Amino acid sequence: MTSSGPGGLWGALFARGAVDMSDAAWLQAMLDVEAALARAAERAGLAPAGSGAAVTGVARAELFDNGTLGAAAAATGNPVPALVRELTRRLPESAAGAAAAVHTGATSQDIIDTAAMLLAARALDAILADLSSAADSCASQAATHAEAVMAGRTLLQQAVPVTFGFVAAGWLNAIDEARQELTRVGSTRLAVQFGGAAGTLASLGERGPEVATLLGTELGLPVPALPWHTNRLRIIELAAALTGACAALGKIARDVALLAQTEVAEVREATAPGRGASSTMPHKQNPVAAVTILAHTKQAPGLLATLTSAAEQEHQRAAGAWHSEWQPLTHLLTLTGSASSWSADLLQNLQVDTPRMRQNLEAAGGLPMAEHITALLSPALGRLQANDLVMGAVRRSTTDDMDLADAIYADERLAATLTEAGVSRAEVDAALRPESYLGATPEFIRRALAAHRAVNAALNG
Amino acid sequence: MTSSGPGGLWGALFARGAVDMSDAAWLQAMLDVEAALARAAERAGLAPAGSGAAVTGVARAELFDNGTLGAAAAATGNPVPALVRELTRRLPESAAGAAAAVHTGATSQDIIDTAAMLLAARALDAILADLSSAADSCASQAATHAEAVMAGRTLLQQAVPVTFGFVAAGWLNAIDEARQELTRVGSTRLAVQFGGAAGTLASLGERGPEVATLLGTELGLPVPALPWHTNRLRIIELAAALTGACAALGKIARDVALLAQTEVAEVREATAPGRGASSTMPHKQNPVAAVTILAHTKQAPGLLATLTSAAEQEHQRAAGAWHSEWQPLTHLLTLTGSASSWSADLLQNLQVDTPRMRQNLEAAGGLPMAEHITALLSPALGRLQANDLVMGAVRRSTTDDMDLADAIYADERLAATLTEAGVSRAEVDAALRPESYLGATPEFIRRALAAHRAVNAALNG
Amino acid sequence: MTSSGPGGLWGALFARGAVDMSDAAWLQAMLDVEAALARAAERAGLAPAGSGAAVTGVARAELFDNGTLGAAAAATGNPVPALVRELTRRLPESAAGAAAAVHTGATSQDIIDTAAMLLAARALDAILADLSSAADSCASQAATHAEAVMAGRTLLQQAVPVTFGFVAAGWLNAIDEARQELTRVGSTRLAVQFGGAAGTLASLGERGPEVATLLGTELGLPVPALPWHTNRLRIIELAAALTGACAALGKIARDVALLAQTEVAEVREATAPGRGASSTMPHKQNPVAAVTILAHTKQAPGLLATLTSAAEQEHQRAAGAWHSEWQPLTHLLTLTGSASSWSADLLQNLQVDTPRMRQNLEAAGGLPMAEHITALLSPALGRLQANDLVMGAVRRSTTDDMDLADAIYADERLAATLTEAGVSRAEVDAALRPESYLGATPEFIRRALAAHRAVNAALNG
Amino acid sequence: MTSSGPGGLWGALFARGAVDMSDAAWLQAMLDVEAALARAAERAGLAPAGSGAAVTGVARAELFDNGTLGAAAAATGNPVPALVRELTRRLPESAAGAAAAVHTGATSQDIIDTAAMLLAARALDAILADLSSAADSCASQAATHAEAVMAGRTLLQQAVPVTFGFVAAGWLNAIDEARQELTRVGSTRLAVQFGGAAGTLASLGERGPEVATLLGTELGLPVPALPWHTNRLRIIELAAALTGACAALGKIARDVALLAQTEVAEVREATAPGRGASSTMPHKQNPVAAVTILAHTKQAPGLLATLTSAAEQEHQRAAGAWHSEWQPLTHLLTLTGSASSWSADLLQNLQVDTPRMRQNLEAAGGLPMAEHITALLSPALGRLQANDLVMGAVRRSTTDDMDLADAIYADERLAATLTEAGVSRAEVDAALRPESYLGATPEFIRRALAAHRAVNAALNG
Repeated sequence: MTSSGPGGLWGALFARGAVDMSDAAWLQAMLDVEAALARAAERAGLAPAGSGAAVTGVARAELFDNGTLGAAAAATGNPVPALVRELTRRLPESAAGAAAAVHTGATSQDIIDTAAMLLAARALDAILADLSSAADSCASQAATHAEAVMAGRTLLQQAVPVTFGFVAAGWLNAIDEARQELTRVGSTRLAVQFGGAAGTLASLGERGPEVATLLGTELGLPVPALPWHTNRLRIIELAAALTGACAALGKIARDVALLAQTEVAEVREATAPGRGASSTMPHKQNPVAAVTILAHTKQAPGLLATLTSAAEQEHQRAAGAWHSEWQPLTHLLTLTGSASSWSADLLQNLQVDTPRMRQNLEAAGGLPMAEHITALLSPALGRLQANDLVMGAVRRSTTDDMDLADAIYADERLAATLTEAGVSRAEVDAALRPESYLGATPEFIRRALAAHRAVNAALNG
Repeated sequence: MTSSGPGGLWGALFARGAVDMSDAAWLQAMLDVEAALARAAERAGLAPAGSGAAVTGVARAELFDNGTLGAAAAATGNPVPALVRELTRRLPESAAGAAAAVHTGATSQDIIDTAAMLLAARALDAILADLSSAADSCASQAATHAEAVMAGRTLLQQAVPVTFGFVAAGWLNAIDEARQELTRVGSTRLAVQFGGAAGTLASLGERGPEVATLLGTELGLPVPALPWHTNRLRIIELAAALTGACAALGKIARDVALLAQTEVAEVREATAPGRGASSTMPHKQNPVAAVTILAHTKQAPGLLATLTSAAEQEHQRAAGAWHSEWQPLTHLLTLTGSASSWSADLLQNLQVDTPRMRQNLEAAGGLPMAEHITALLSPALGRLQANDLVMGAVRRSTTDDMDLADAIYADERLAATLTEAGVSRAEVDAALRPESYLGATPEFIRRALAAHRAVNAALNG
Repeated sequence: MTSSGPGGLWGALFARGAVDMSDAAWLQAMLDVEAALARAAERAGLAPAGSGAAVTGVARAELFDNGTLGAAAAATGNPVPALVRELTRRLPESAAGAAAAVHTGATSQDIIDTAAMLLAARALDAILADLSSAADSCASQAATHAEAVMAGRTLLQQAVPVTFGFVAAGWLNAIDEARQELTRVGSTRLAVQFGGAAGTLASLGERGPEVATLLGTELGLPVPALPWHTNRLRIIELAAALTGACAALGKIARDVALLAQTEVAEVREATAPGRGASSTMPHKQNPVAAVTILAHTKQAPGLLATLTSAAEQEHQRAAGAWHSEWQPLTHLLTLTGSASSWSADLLQNLQVDTPRMRQNLEAAGGLPMAEHITALLSPALGRLQANDLVMGAVRRSTTDDMDLADAIYADERLAATLTEAGVSRAEVDAALRPESYLGATPEFIRRALAAHRAVNAALNG
Repeated sequence: MTSSGPGGLWGALFARGAVDMSDAAWLQAMLDVEAALARAAERAGLAPAGSGAAVTGVARAELFDNGTLGAAAAATGNPVPALVRELTRRLPESAAGAAAAVHTGATSQDIIDTAAMLLAARALDAILADLSSAADSCASQAATHAEAVMAGRTLLQQAVPVTFGFVAAGWLNAIDEARQELTRVGSTRLAVQFGGAAGTLASLGERGPEVATLLGTELGLPVPALPWHTNRLRIIELAAALTGACAALGKIARDVALLAQTEVAEVREATAPGRGASSTMPHKQNPVAAVTILAHTKQAPGLLATLTSAAEQEHQRAAGAWHSEWQPLTHLLTLTGSASSWSADLLQNLQVDTPRMRQNLEAAGGLPMAEHITALLSPALGRLQANDLVMGAVRRSTTDDMDLADAIYADERLAATLTEAGVSRAEVDAALRPESYLGATPEFIRRALAAHRAVNAALNG
């Protein structure tokens, strides 16, 4: 799309944070690749001494005009041929011999693909920093609210109790998984692209692989076994990992938006003056971060579909499919970065109303505990029969608007069965307390926190 | 994505032509809506005389700073609240009363949705102009090359003969269908959005519908029966029509890229100096326009998926899904406009090598005419048996590298059957001439041209 | 996918209602096309008298074995060649001459595409019947509950009041728009496919167009200007209209699921014994229909993306893209039918708790009416200043847990301003009643109902 | 969709091979999970001795009726509640106590998700076996044809020479990467789902984690740190890996279809009688496997988009998004299996015409070698100037239809420059031989084969 980045009309919404996929960033990344290639050529003895430094010296984005390069790109289908000419032209006269080092052995796709990998590596650093912060906030919430009971909800109905710490532990676990996958892709699947016209590095004779290795060293990127001009699995894995991160954040944002509903009101976003204000309604306190995160994450699957569709690439270099990757990949990296930045903010400042959580749960008059009563009776009756029996009390509780405990003892058959099964009224009352029916909640929180420490140790060193 | 528009690094590739969805265009469209609303409020007697003109006078994008508005958007989730404040602040002191007219009755979504409709209307004009040109070029090719035989190809194999005029007629027909659908959507499905906070126009009391009507008049947009804040079928139909246009263009570009293959060489793109050049291979003449069109059209389905997914919108205004529409809609309009512009260029300058077309067809030694021999025999033998018999000759033709005619008469049983069926060698030879097996080709070309004239008359007035 | 249809494990969930896209239905539709073609050939004098009847007599799915045909399909890439052989073989000896009529002039794609159109036409009838019922239920709810106030909700927060009739009118309007679009596509974009090997109908000489016309008459389908083997805009428009219908239904289902939340409880699905039951929790009453509808509608965008991607088809018949349409089109028609059937059921039986609606609105202590107070003050202060002033009272109302009315008069400056503006306490109290702030709600309901009557008249005759 | 599996009309096309995702397979997988859970419950002492065996004894799909279960699923939104009742009912009277073991602690989602994981594990085995075979065939082609020169093609134009072994090595490398990713996901991301009603395993008190561990042991599936009811990253990674495999196969199929074009004819699919036949054209030899593979692989991105969209899941169990996964996951596993089976067949039987490859390359009159001449001159002139000079000869070669060598020496300036640079005519002639310009081709083939051996060793043991 044509709207500008961070400084533009939509930039503070959709290009928040440290990921930079702007035109200037793309241009610099392409120049970085050309400069590294010139240094590699010199090191391989394919260009005069000093060539690498000379090219590197002029490979600065501020010396070039994006508009000029862009206009020239229309003639060749990509901006690299014009960039190569302009870069060569900018070499100082004293370093004219360095022209031999420029673009040595390369094809346009080598430059653009490798630049994309550099940009991805830089973007992943920024994304991982924000996700690390978001995860830490979740961990903190999980620990702080480990015992704060609230309604567990399934199919948007109150089900059985959980705690808010358990909810936050679930968010934490998903972010940590996304971090691990992004890290795996970042460390094993980003790679130099260097194959020349048809992937054989023919113009370098037998020196191709050596130059490729030097190029990788210069860039700090791994060198793959083969050029991957029309093997796009790296792009698919990268895009899938980014979409996975978006998915984890979208789930959290959805939960926050639901928990912040007027009628639920268990969490709300931190309020800065003017934050979340409506253009007309003075009382509105919109969950702006959650909503904006969803506005990002809902775009990821379509972009992933475009990038995976594009992998059907012809022969040695594709006619259109490759070119169709540039915009969705740029957008997906930007969106994931921006969503991560929003999420770090959201989670750091999330306000939790634990009394309201308990209150919402208790408003259901014990119904979310019905399964617990079933569990008490199951050993004696079998689960299905116990379920049918308790269902009667539940219906009465709903119809006659009475607490479940009262409804249970208003049902003579059920009351008798409980007595026969040796379950006392005190035990029933205890069973109807949420704290008594949390199962493995503490254990799961412990595990999520332990896993988080392990991920932090592995990723943040 | 964050790359800039027409003047940027990728703009000449992906934002070609007259569609303008830049930040500046968005801002001006929002200001146009606010100005029209102020005039409508004045006409409805809800604001002092002169309010409309006063607001209109300051509703000029160049007076505002996108970056400032964008930054403020982060607090409220969209740029409208800041825009309203800034717009009001810019009113001259002499027209302070005009403040009452600003944003009267509206909510942010009213402004953004209506601005999107204005932008879409403007974009459709530009797209339709380019598609009209592209269609005219196809019509010209269809007429010029109506009788230029070439191989019809199915599953990428030569099948039976067609003519290039027939191929161009098929392209023409698809573009004309896309034009009609875009025109239908443009004239019946774009509409004012005006509903206020929850779609009831409550802050206008009973005057809401009247103001809505005046707003529609001011903007030249239809007023819908109901606000459509969370009924996004208009967006879906618009996006589907745009994607349909992309699909028609993508099919043409695919055909051109295939026909331009080195081994086929039946068409090539017009050559300007440097156009289609490779960064390394002096002999390459890449089909740049076709490839670039495909780079656009392959992005449309994913954007359409995002926009249709986004239609699941909650209650009276959505929490994220609506916000997720802005970028893909902006991008889809831009891409369709750019692809249309590229296509007008491609088709106007396409060079057709009709001798090569015939040569490629003849190189197959009559095989693409095999079906015709089957057809000659079918009345006597039945289609299936005729097919089996001819298949033998075809196999021989392939194995022994002989022309199909020779292979037919080298097969005694087939030769005898032909004689029995009263088919002479001369008739067989005639049947093996491509011109003799074009069926309804001329009629289909005539129809496509007639339909094109009708579409032009209806659309271009 | 490989799970079976209506009678299978998932069929009652995902293949509900009258749309039948089963293997048997596909087979019968292909046979219907072949039979119609045989009758057309006879009428055109291309086959002996009686051929049409003879072929029609054996063109019954129950005479064929799907498995056998399917196995043969693997050799040719589609089941038609085997079907043609088997169909011919089944002709009675007395009608051996009818073999000449079978598959006359056709290619496999003609049969499959036309069969798909027949199936789509049949599916649209079923879908439209269910959508008509669903719309009628919405209309009934809109009329019945026109004045039942409830919270309008934006970004999942209570905003300003609406009525449930208004909500239902919005649902109605979207379904009616979807019905109109499906009807438009059904009546103008379904069409015979008949072009032979490369779209020229060459094997019929000059008789092709005539046979095509007769075929259209036999099938009750329009005959297009040109064959559309590689112009897939019809498929795109059909798929987009189906996805649009799914979008309208998904929005309704989302609203129902949200309104049925334990904490909101404003609607619930009708309860049949066991309906909505959990496998373990006796108290759960899951909104099964709403959830299941969403399970359908969320699949539509991805299928639409596949079908639009597939429109980039090579030359005269595509190598894979066409074949990739069969499954997603089958699935999309099935899902839309099933979602429509579920929705008709959901809406007919939806239980609405209007007292609870008012209670939820009142629980907000007047806050959703804050905009109304702003509107009272705007003429005197300007909208922005009024908003700021009311915001103070809103904050106090929230912080000190007092009704908005009390908070307003606890704010001396605001109280004074109201007095100055000539707004009495009684007027403020009145302004805080939801009924006083419904704006154009009644008008919008009237319009939706009037539009519905018009659509019914146009569509249901 | 509702078409049946292997035995149905489309099954031999789209459900080829050993992956079984039929209704029966789903049912058995769910029963396998219930049986394993019963055994785990017994081992944990939560059910009488013999319970596990008793449940396992009746947990056989053939004892149940899919239609009955399916019909019951409509009431609850999934088939598990009915399955639990039916399974319990089928316990022999002698093992009535085993009822306590059935579905212990579980919720419906536990059963369906874990069954999906079992099915995925089984499917991955089948897919990996076919991909292993496909990769071995590529390796064999890469070794056999390592030196068979052919045109490398970029943007569908002949570029510089490659060898067919190099092309096959590229295919091999992509399949091997896909195998590694599928193996990684299969061994680290499939996992038991076991959390009970809201993920806390509350009904098992403190015994939940212990039962989960036993369940994992019984099923041979890892036990995750936390239940993942609404953390769907496992599904996303699985779906992405499957889509990646499809992408690798789609690229190969596209190449085969292009290389098999009538005008290129460098490869063809093995011919069995009737294979690739047209319904009307006796001479057609369609690349059925390649086309059918593309028909599969083009469906994957849309399904992946649906599955990633579905990851935005509410609270502790989702209202629709989870349910929307079942069909696309079933379909994606089926399609990937079927595409893998087709590909193993395609690659094992691919016929390669190496003389035609050389002939197509030579038909270009040396043009694909132009870059090599540039390379010879670059040291003396610089790359850009050398390119410009050679471009002149290339143009002459094209315009005057002469071999590039002749055109070079017909250009006096170029001839002189070559002489000055010390390049003899013999060296030019040598430089125009394809074998002289293959660069790292042999090295890249070696690497691909070495990597393949390593992957085979790691994966196939």
